[in-house]
Amino acid sequence: MAFKAQVGSVLRKTEAAALRSARGARMTTPASTALRTPTTVTTTVSAAARCFSTSPARHWRQTQARRADITRTSERYPDIKRDSRFATITSEHVAYFKELLGENGVIDAVTNPAAQDDVEAFNGDWMRKYRGHGQLVLRPGSTEEVSKVLKYCNDQRLAVVPQGGNTGLVGGSVPVFDEVVISMGRMQTIRSFDDVSGTLVVDAGVVLEAADQYLAERGYLFPLDLGAKGSCHIGGNISTNAGGLRLLRYGSLHGTVLGVEAVLPDGTIVDDLCKLRKNNTGYDLKQLFIGAEGTLGIVTGVSIACPQRPAAVNVAFLGLSSYEQALRAFREAKSQLSEILSAFELMDAGSQHIVRTVRPDARRPLDGEHDFYCLIETSGSNAEHDTAKLEAFLEDVMGKEIVEDGVVAQDETQVKALWTWREGITECLGHLGGVYKYDVSIPLPELYRLVEDTRTQLESKGLIGDGDEFPAAKVVGYGHMGDANLHLNIAVRRYDDAVEKALEPFVYEWISKRQGSISAEHGLGLAKKKFIGYSRNDTLVGLMKQIKNTFDPNGIMNPYKYI
Amino acid sequence: MAFKAQVGSVLRKTEAAALRSARGARMTTPASTALRTPTTVTTTVSAAARCFSTSPARHWRQTQARRADITRTSERYPDIKRDSRFATITSEHVAYFKELLGENGVIDAVTNPAAQDDVEAFNGDWMRKYRGHGQLVLRPGSTEEVSKVLKYCNDQRLAVVPQGGNTGLVGGSVPVFDEVVISMGRMQTIRSFDDVSGTLVVDAGVVLEAADQYLAERGYLFPLDLGAKGSCHIGGNISTNAGGLRLLRYGSLHGTVLGVEAVLPDGTIVDDLCKLRKNNTGYDLKQLFIGAEGTLGIVTGVSIACPQRPAAVNVAFLGLSSYEQALRAFREAKSQLSEILSAFELMDAGSQHIVRTVRPDARRPLDGEHDFYCLIETSGSNAEHDTAKLEAFLEDVMGKEIVEDGVVAQDETQVKALWTWREGITECLGHLGGVYKYDVSIPLPELYRLVEDTRTQLESKGLIGDGDEFPAAKVVGYGHMGDANLHLNIAVRRYDDAVEKALEPFVYEWISKRQGSISAEHGLGLAKKKFIGYSRNDTLVGLMKQIKNTFDPNGIMNPYKYI
Repeated sequence: MAFKAQVGSVLRKTEAAALRSARGARMTTPASTALRTPTTVTTTVSAAARCFSTSPARHWRQTQARRADITRTSERYPDIKRDSRFATITSEHVAYFKELLGENGVIDAVTNPAAQDDVEAFNGDWMRKYRGHGQLVLRPGSTEEVSKVLKYCNDQRLAVVPQGGNTGLVGGSVPVFDEVVISMGRMQTIRSFDDVSGTLVVDAGVVLEAADQYLAERGYLFPLDLGAKGSCHIGGNISTNAGGLRLLRYGSLHGTVLGVEAVLPDGTIVDDLCKLRKNNTGYDLKQLFIGAEGTLGIVTGVSIACPQRPAAVNVAFLGLSSYEQALRAFREAKSQLSEILSAFELMDAGSQHIVRTVRPDARRPLDGEHDFYCLIETSGSNAEHDTAKLEAFLEDVMGKEIVEDGVVAQDETQVKALWTWREGITECLGHLGGVYKYDVSIPLPELYRLVEDTRTQLESKGLIGDGDEFPAAKVVGYGHMGDANLHLNIAVRRYDDAVEKALEPFVYEWISKRQGSISAEHGLGLAKKKFIGYSRNDTLVGLMKQIKNTFDPNGIMNPYKYI
Repeated sequence: MAFKAQVGSVLRKTEAAALRSARGARMTTPASTALRTPTTVTTTVSAAARCFSTSPARHWRQTQARRADITRTSERYPDIKRDSRFATITSEHVAYFKELLGENGVIDAVTNPAAQDDVEAFNGDWMRKYRGHGQLVLRPGSTEEVSKVLKYCNDQRLAVVPQGGNTGLVGGSVPVFDEVVISMGRMQTIRSFDDVSGTLVVDAGVVLEAADQYLAERGYLFPLDLGAKGSCHIGGNISTNAGGLRLLRYGSLHGTVLGVEAVLPDGTIVDDLCKLRKNNTGYDLKQLFIGAEGTLGIVTGVSIACPQRPAAVNVAFLGLSSYEQALRAFREAKSQLSEILSAFELMDAGSQHIVRTVRPDARRPLDGEHDFYCLIETSGSNAEHDTAKLEAFLEDVMGKEIVEDGVVAQDETQVKALWTWREGITECLGHLGGVYKYDVSIPLPELYRLVEDTRTQLESKGLIGDGDEFPAAKVVGYGHMGDANLHLNIAVRRYDDAVEKALEPFVYEWISKRQGSISAEHGLGLAKKKFIGYSRNDTLVGLMKQIKNTFDPNGIMNPYKYI
């Protein structure tokens, strides 16, 4: 009963504290919101301008100020040349689109340079790493409009970039040169929901959180959950095969998505919006659109199987002395919590230290210092049963000295508070300056060694340290342990070529040697296009190119990226 | 507490009875076993010879005797013509294969007519509906051998049929004309298992039950289960996207399969045998092989995520007065049993009557007569919790008068016994003579109406009745209610063109009107090739054909079938 007492005492403190953060507000997509607010933009860039302050108080103002300082992607990657097959947008093109979509459906800086500020919001990503030269944003309001837009672009050889909530991390949803942005933000209708089967059909532009709230009112749950839920579109989730926090429990989108409606570059509407769980009639083509990052067509509608919303959710937050102990805890959790285990998240000491630094007033879940922390979530239909299982598990892992200390949330507020220590990492990391982010899969036994070896690599080159003379400040690791999915993050004071050279291809080679994946869930985009060979062999890449040519013979769909 | 008392009394009787059937022995693939035993074969066929006795005692002997009486597929479907692009097998071809695979790897009736009996076992399906003119069976022992075989066949324009356990129901795994059968039965190695992640990697020829037994010894479970598990190959399961009994709980193979190794017709080995749960690097090509029925290449290896084996399994067997009540029971089960619900199976009175007729000595689960029966299975990690949930559910549905009567299994023997009343239907139906089988998905509210409307259709044409003068004897429906998947079965005294014409396209049009699927889990094969238009539009079929041409430009892979 040692653990219960322990938990009890910690909990009393936790209860007393004002836990200010709420899970519902997660990540709150600061950049995305900011990006849509017009600001003055210049292309002047200096290295110094990219040295950001760590003061949280100044963060929100800076987000806007910084945007102008982002190096254009074409300057950062001079090897990428504009494809001369593509036409340049003319006033005739713009006139066609305005006729088709109305004034509300077009943001045009081609004929109206004053609108460039508005366009700029769609030109850059929220991580401030990628910025294109786009001058035209189209906002179709229906599948038919998407069809007409794409057919025209294909006929006119205008390259396009589909854009959802623009919360991606690999530069996949913003232009490189002057591609036309097709923003799906106006297609926000929830088309249907069947409360017997749990099948939800939505427009691609529906925001993930909106869909989940709609389902919550009906006792159901969207089988995908991720930090950017307040901004990301379901169409974007499908196009990037988003993984997120619930994959351990509900599986990948390849299993939960029942149907896809998509428009091919020639304007063909692929209506594969099946609502059935089983349909074995021919090749499962919708699977190609899941994770295609808009290179085959634009996803306009999605049909997905949604599970019942769990009546009981429990969260425990544990401190452990080593990665090996975290691994042991995971094994035990899988075995003992089994069907109610819905998340097993890993955080190292460094990642928690950053959250504490950026949010000094937030009440810490555990008083002591530990080398690793795990967040365990259970979801089930019976609170009493789930609590009994979780308590038995915690007693067991404390008894076996796998876990050093732990705390269990006693109500929903505490559940949300504990989650902020995991979900807040991404945002807090940004406060140090820039971040090199790697989202990778590695077989579990070696998962965390990548963080240690990356730190050693930067140390050996004198690139990391406490003083301002070092470009890199921290190497931290966290992620979805239940899915063998590590987020390796290198927080830097400034983006620096020497750091980038020390990291790549080092990180990719390290992963490739262990048969991991260089992109677990964030996709390829522009960031990883040239590194696909580390995770896929030539045969597979060759087949992918054949598929791409079959669907998009003119190559207008999201060029310069993916494969 | 009415239900508990009820259950108790029924259970006492159940316990006292000698429950002879065991779930472990399910379906026992009689035909498959028989097909591999050489017998004399002639092509003489008469309608009378296809009128089978209903006496169960004579069934096993008959299975062999009947085989010679199966109409050749080419005679039954004279519209299908042999593709003149394909070469005829010569003694030179045979010599090449014998050199490559050794004597053990080739069953050759081309140069040795005495071996035709042995080949015949691979020429026909276990339902005795399809029978080709194959003369050569190749049995490669490795992926490299598959590669060499396919490259040679492709170069020589020899058409091939990949064959797993040959337990399919749509004629997909047997030749139509003289295609070379490539049997995967020698590739039976379990390549690896990771007991932390639960990732299993196997050769395509591993029998499903063998893999599940291997996993059982390690506390894990194969996430697919179906009646033919004792014979079917995992490669065949993947190639037909098998659904089965556990889909409700563990999802489809599109979600659980992590990687596929396949050989393309030109001999290219596609090594996509990923062991990671998340890998977002390019189009997910393995998905195309899941359900491709061997038309793109041959699956040689599979990597799959396996869940923990549940510690507790409970089964309840319920009697209900109508389909509407079954629907209500399903809603309640989803809501109340939630994460532990692992099967919700529907059976109508007719399907249960047939089992009782064929197995008169089997102890019935319920004494009374009901119009519908449901089998509910729960699987979880804590027997006490699961029992409490199930009992609460049963009390609730009895109290609401949704369910008329019910019984709960008290031990593993009873669990198996109750399952035989669901799983035995397929085999017992065969005892009436022939069976027209439709495996379809229909939105739940109208699921069972197809059975009633099909019966009415046959009655209106005077084709169904109790006397021998009626070709059709029974129309029954059962299936995986949890997946909206109905097995519509028309038991006939003899196969009859008038019955077939009354059923098709009637059944397909009925399903198409309700946006159902004409093949929920059995695939297209030869049986449904020409009906794909009822479930897929021209755009999709056009894209499928482009994919097919990309992978198999010479069309040698499983011709005459699929699309």
